[in-house]
Amino acid sequence: MDEAIQWINKYPAISDSGEVLLEDAAARVLAEPFVSPTDAPPFDMTARDGYALRSAETVGAGSYNPLPFCIQNSCLPLSPHSAALVLFGMPLPQGADAVAPFDLVHAGEDNIDLLGTIAQGDGVTFQGQETSEGTTLIDISRPLRPADLGLLASFGVERVRVVRRPRVRLILAGRKTSGTCKLTDANGPMLRAAVARDGGVIEASEYGVTTRTAIADLISRPGADVVIVCGRTGAGPDDEAPLALGIAGTLSIHGIALQPGGSTGMGSVEDVPVILLPGNPLDCLCAYDLFAGQLIRRLGGRSSQLPYGLQHATVGRRIVSSIGNLELCRVRLVEGKVVPLGTANSGGLVSAARADGFVLVPAPLEGYAPGAPVAVYLYDEACGLDGIGI
Amino acid sequence: MDEAIQWINKYPAISDSGEVLLEDAAARVLAEPFVSPTDAPPFDMTARDGYALRSAETVGAGSYNPLPFCIQNSCLPLSPHSAALVLFGMPLPQGADAVAPFDLVHAGEDNIDLLGTIAQGDGVTFQGQETSEGTTLIDISRPLRPADLGLLASFGVERVRVVRRPRVRLILAGRKTSGTCKLTDANGPMLRAAVARDGGVIEASEYGVTTRTAIADLISRPGADVVIVCGRTGAGPDDEAPLALGIAGTLSIHGIALQPGGSTGMGSVEDVPVILLPGNPLDCLCAYDLFAGQLIRRLGGRSSQLPYGLQHATVGRRIVSSIGNLELCRVRLVEGKVVPLGTANSGGLVSAARADGFVLVPAPLEGYAPGAPVAVYLYDEACGLDGIGI
Repeated sequence: MDEAIQWINKYPAISDSGEVLLEDAAARVLAEPFVSPTDAPPFDMTARDGYALRSAETVGAGSYNPLPFCIQNSCLPLSPHSAALVLFGMPLPQGADAVAPFDLVHAGEDNIDLLGTIAQGDGVTFQGQETSEGTTLIDISRPLRPADLGLLASFGVERVRVVRRPRVRLILAGRKTSGTCKLTDANGPMLRAAVARDGGVIEASEYGVTTRTAIADLISRPGADVVIVCGRTGAGPDDEAPLALGIAGTLSIHGIALQPGGSTGMGSVEDVPVILLPGNPLDCLCAYDLFAGQLIRRLGGRSSQLPYGLQHATVGRRIVSSIGNLELCRVRLVEGKVVPLGTANSGGLVSAARADGFVLVPAPLEGYAPGAPVAVYLYDEACGLDGIGI
Repeated sequence: MDEAIQWINKYPAISDSGEVLLEDAAARVLAEPFVSPTDAPPFDMTARDGYALRSAETVGAGSYNPLPFCIQNSCLPLSPHSAALVLFGMPLPQGADAVAPFDLVHAGEDNIDLLGTIAQGDGVTFQGQETSEGTTLIDISRPLRPADLGLLASFGVERVRVVRRPRVRLILAGRKTSGTCKLTDANGPMLRAAVARDGGVIEASEYGVTTRTAIADLISRPGADVVIVCGRTGAGPDDEAPLALGIAGTLSIHGIALQPGGSTGMGSVEDVPVILLPGNPLDCLCAYDLFAGQLIRRLGGRSSQLPYGLQHATVGRRIVSSIGNLELCRVRLVEGKVVPLGTANSGGLVSAARADGFVLVPAPLEGYAPGAPVAVYLYDEACGLDGIGI
């Protein structure tokens, strides 16, 4: 496992980048950090709707002592004892240093009566108060969030430079039939959706590639940033994938102390990483998540992370594991307690569909007893609002 | 806040649904639960590559006592003292009850020598072992995961019925200019990305709609499942949105004990919910997340959840809040400790871009002291692999 993680971590993000329109940039990763091109706000700005005025002139105002101000145009420098109607986000009129909110004002035709004292800076965001020119505002290594797009737009940015999406070639080295039986392909739909989720694009998806030379040929064809071969990774007579990678390039790792997913392999053809995923769909899912998905996210400029939330909880029913392998056990959260859905290798994709997430049991452990604290990786990222104390 | 949450929760999922191809179903929500149409596996199935045989005939086999088996065709019922080469996922040959792995076998031309005893059921998944016909395998109320697509494909499913995406009309009631200054629109790009993330589709996005009648007209036009009006929600002279909603339909809630986002409003035109979001981008973001996003997710068949992971941590630097409002404070995690980025109302979208997430401070509290345990809602959903004990 350590070796496999190190193997993944040696690949840097793709150095290619391209410009996209801001409206197409959601969840893309910036090629370079976004640095504030100006102070924000770029000028002393109104932070509320109301009347801009001089705070010093408001001293003593109250509901029993309304103070009058002349209404004037907000584009002109403020005259003495005058106030200008302003809306959020406007430049503060020259001479003003505060904005009185409407609820402290009785407005007439040409005058207002102010019903309270306004402190200096109240209702104002001063130039550079949010950030100063040259400050890094959006880091690389994370997908752009909706609020990031808003921030970029607020600086007038219309296009951003983002890391090119990694091109993923998918070689499904399974059989299409078994005797007279047509076999279903679970891995193709699963992997294509996972690659898209992790920010990759499918460069090609080839199904029913079974011979060593055909696999080797597809592995070595140029054009992909990463090649995934799914199936035929074991030690049986038709397990051609490791041999094919050996012909096309280098097989660096084959066999990982992981269950499910132990027959995973890794290597490369020139600079292109190649990952061999097991054909058993559950093994394929687990090995994809821990290795291929990580790699695709790295190549796409994201940090090496699982696309899952993490929740700490205690074990409700014993999680059984065997010593010597990292085991990925699908679990449900039942009344806040972690309950395994069978063992690491049981249940197929059914166990993944019925699970809330999974627990990783380290190789030296035989599992977890009831009451043990564990970290649950959650398949669905959202979290409830139930817990907020409103 | 309670009233606003209740108002959202009264809206059920859209009852319309449509069929989509499995390959287009990622992250969509099923219109009805997926119930296993058969046992899984539908027959006694090989669970590894190897040799299918009768376990009773393997008793006593060992490396010092190899037992011979005749190799036979895997399509025929198993003859006595015979073994059939099988690959993962095939029907188990009639008569066999186990599959010996290759590493316990010396294979010859017509015979194998078995080097160990094989237990009954070893290397086999029996009919119905993963699930039995009629069991609910995929619930409604959650987006389909990559593994779900694999599971559906394994049952031969090619199309699934999903909840129609909610159609969201976006009315940006801001000004395009301020005097001679062209104003930037941060809310439009932010909200369009957020709506897409939450599973909605933009039905229309209208910018620069400022008058009461124009807003009212757009609110009441049919065709949307939810209408969002952004801007002009306050109490100032140009805050036409609440008045426009009052003309077009009913304004049910206006003003919420929330910071940022207090000027949010809610109502409806006939059965269509209408949410008024503040025009200040930070207020808009917070109110969108807590109300509009929740509603869109509900209408789209998802459970009412924030699209953010949750992490429990302790406060590293005092979080200051005022009593009386639920406050949403953007925070960073610094060496595992929660550090606020200013106060709830400060920093604009800069604070959101620079934050790892936010903490909700309940209305009765004045904030959190250093060392207090809090829940952090994480803007980026992924979690590191650092913590796994591999």
